[in-house]
Amino acid sequence: MHILVTGAAGMVGRKFVERLARDGHLGERAVTKMTLHDVVLPPTPPAAFVYATSVSDFAAPGEAEKLTAERPDVIVHLAAIVSGEAEADFEKGYHVNRDGTQALFEAIRAIGDGYCPRLVFSSSIAVFGAPFPEAIGDDFFHTPLTSYGTQKAICELLLSDYTRRGIFDGVGIRLPTICVRPGKPNKAASGFFSNIIREPLAGQETVLPVDTSVRHWFASPRAAVGFILHAATLDGARLGPRRNLTMPGIDATVGGEIDALKKIAGEKAAKLIRHEIDPTIAKIVDGWPRTFDARRAAELGFTADPDFESIVHAHIEDELAGKIAV
Amino acid sequence: MHILVTGAAGMVGRKFVERLARDGHLGERAVTKMTLHDVVLPPTPPAAFVYATSVSDFAAPGEAEKLTAERPDVIVHLAAIVSGEAEADFEKGYHVNRDGTQALFEAIRAIGDGYCPRLVFSSSIAVFGAPFPEAIGDDFFHTPLTSYGTQKAICELLLSDYTRRGIFDGVGIRLPTICVRPGKPNKAASGFFSNIIREPLAGQETVLPVDTSVRHWFASPRAAVGFILHAATLDGARLGPRRNLTMPGIDATVGGEIDALKKIAGEKAAKLIRHEIDPTIAKIVDGWPRTFDARRAAELGFTADPDFESIVHAHIEDELAGKIAV
Repeated sequence: MHILVTGAAGMVGRKFVERLARDGHLGERAVTKMTLHDVVLPPTPPAAFVYATSVSDFAAPGEAEKLTAERPDVIVHLAAIVSGEAEADFEKGYHVNRDGTQALFEAIRAIGDGYCPRLVFSSSIAVFGAPFPEAIGDDFFHTPLTSYGTQKAICELLLSDYTRRGIFDGVGIRLPTICVRPGKPNKAASGFFSNIIREPLAGQETVLPVDTSVRHWFASPRAAVGFILHAATLDGARLGPRRNLTMPGIDATVGGEIDALKKIAGEKAAKLIRHEIDPTIAKIVDGWPRTFDARRAAELGFTADPDFESIVHAHIEDELAGKIAV
Repeated sequence: MHILVTGAAGMVGRKFVERLARDGHLGERAVTKMTLHDVVLPPTPPAAFVYATSVSDFAAPGEAEKLTAERPDVIVHLAAIVSGEAEADFEKGYHVNRDGTQALFEAIRAIGDGYCPRLVFSSSIAVFGAPFPEAIGDDFFHTPLTSYGTQKAICELLLSDYTRRGIFDGVGIRLPTICVRPGKPNKAASGFFSNIIREPLAGQETVLPVDTSVRHWFASPRAAVGFILHAATLDGARLGPRRNLTMPGIDATVGGEIDALKKIAGEKAAKLIRHEIDPTIAKIVDGWPRTFDARRAAELGFTADPDFESIVHAHIEDELAGKIAV
């Protein structure tokens, strides 16, 4: 089978491709080709299947048509401008996150002729906007407080309608905040959730800008890849017309994160976290969802990490070859 | 003040214009000009203010720019392809209902320069899709089962984001099913809700294609005009970032409708209703919302008809000059 991945150079995209390169199959079927697209050249880990790579603005006219011309069996659509940039650049955010996705959906429609691929779309819990109930249920409404969340919510609606029309067979998955994000600390407001685990494990100091009571919703990169694999192979009939799902996650407080770190890497690791409240970040984070009751996805077989310690262990195994530096 | 109305030749549009022509003011401010747009020439009832009329496909490139060039103070955006046509013609529905609305929003953004009109958008309870709770609350999610509902839900999301960005000051109002719709019976699946009142009052036979236990959510044309007037003058600060509201309505069963008809026009009127179940219509209607808990709109001062009898009386007063023909 032929799989197209947009945003294939991103963190989740790379890990998804690595997993398929290792497995060689998706569900029961052997992978014969992967087409990888991004704005920079996506890596192509050694695999038994062939790769095609493509580098462009995927929202530019004609790009989606090129990517779908070979009728990939499965499309994993991860490409997006991130939240902060979509907020800073109104036009770019709508151009890529909305118009780009629309162009992809329309390119599939234009093929017609019975072509109806499985399409997995990475949505976000940013479709929700405060105030929230204690736990956000599967039927809570979407009132995003960012343009990014608005764009994701629009694409979810289109995904359901195009699926209902038989144009493709879509599944939208709202990913929790990915933790532990590998790589360098970045300027994302959510960065500290990962920084306070990743940096101490590497023997580096890091700053915690919010109170330890802050609660949030997490999945490891490994769990996120598992969500995509399951969404790509799930029987669509089990979903009915409600095609967008909040993925299961682990809710943890920042204090709970630090406890897990201590348990795995000792007090010394936790001492590398300097607590310095940043009121700006604290205010942003205050508007974010804390926890979900993601019952439907769990019933459909999507599996979260068992607990926050497992999230830390996954990072140590997948990114640090099992070695803690502290 | 200058008011722009799109879809001004439609039933609700015409009644809104008539009301302003009669009142001469919107809230505290005198109306000095109304610009009326539709695909056919909208009527211009005698008024103390001036009219400009415009006939075109408002979603065509450049149209929204022309309509907003004079910077109307209030924009009432009613133009839309109706549900049945948007379902039958995928491209036309998305072109007018989504792209047209986006073009209007973008035309306002392009003016910039501090221009920030109040924008009232007529949305629909079609943003909701079965299965429903017993009464649909204000925070129930949007899973439309038609392209029309999808398009309305997308425009609601954009309205909130553009408002949050300060581009305009939007209020989206989800209208109940309008009853009694004046005019001839039409082929809309919902037509019978009005037909079974309007036709007997005019001494005409009519067919009821569903069970008398069917429950639905109604507002008179008069109440709908009241919703628009209130949405056009409401203090935006009271709304916060959640800009789209389910309008209050009257829930009534078809049996309750018939009881009201009997009470007002006698058994003879009710005898003009021939009960002939149409399984196709019955199935469509089965997927529609029954009742709402539209608490937020009521708290914000939107007022429904007091009961279904008032809806019948409003029709007799406004459309039949007080005279029943049966």
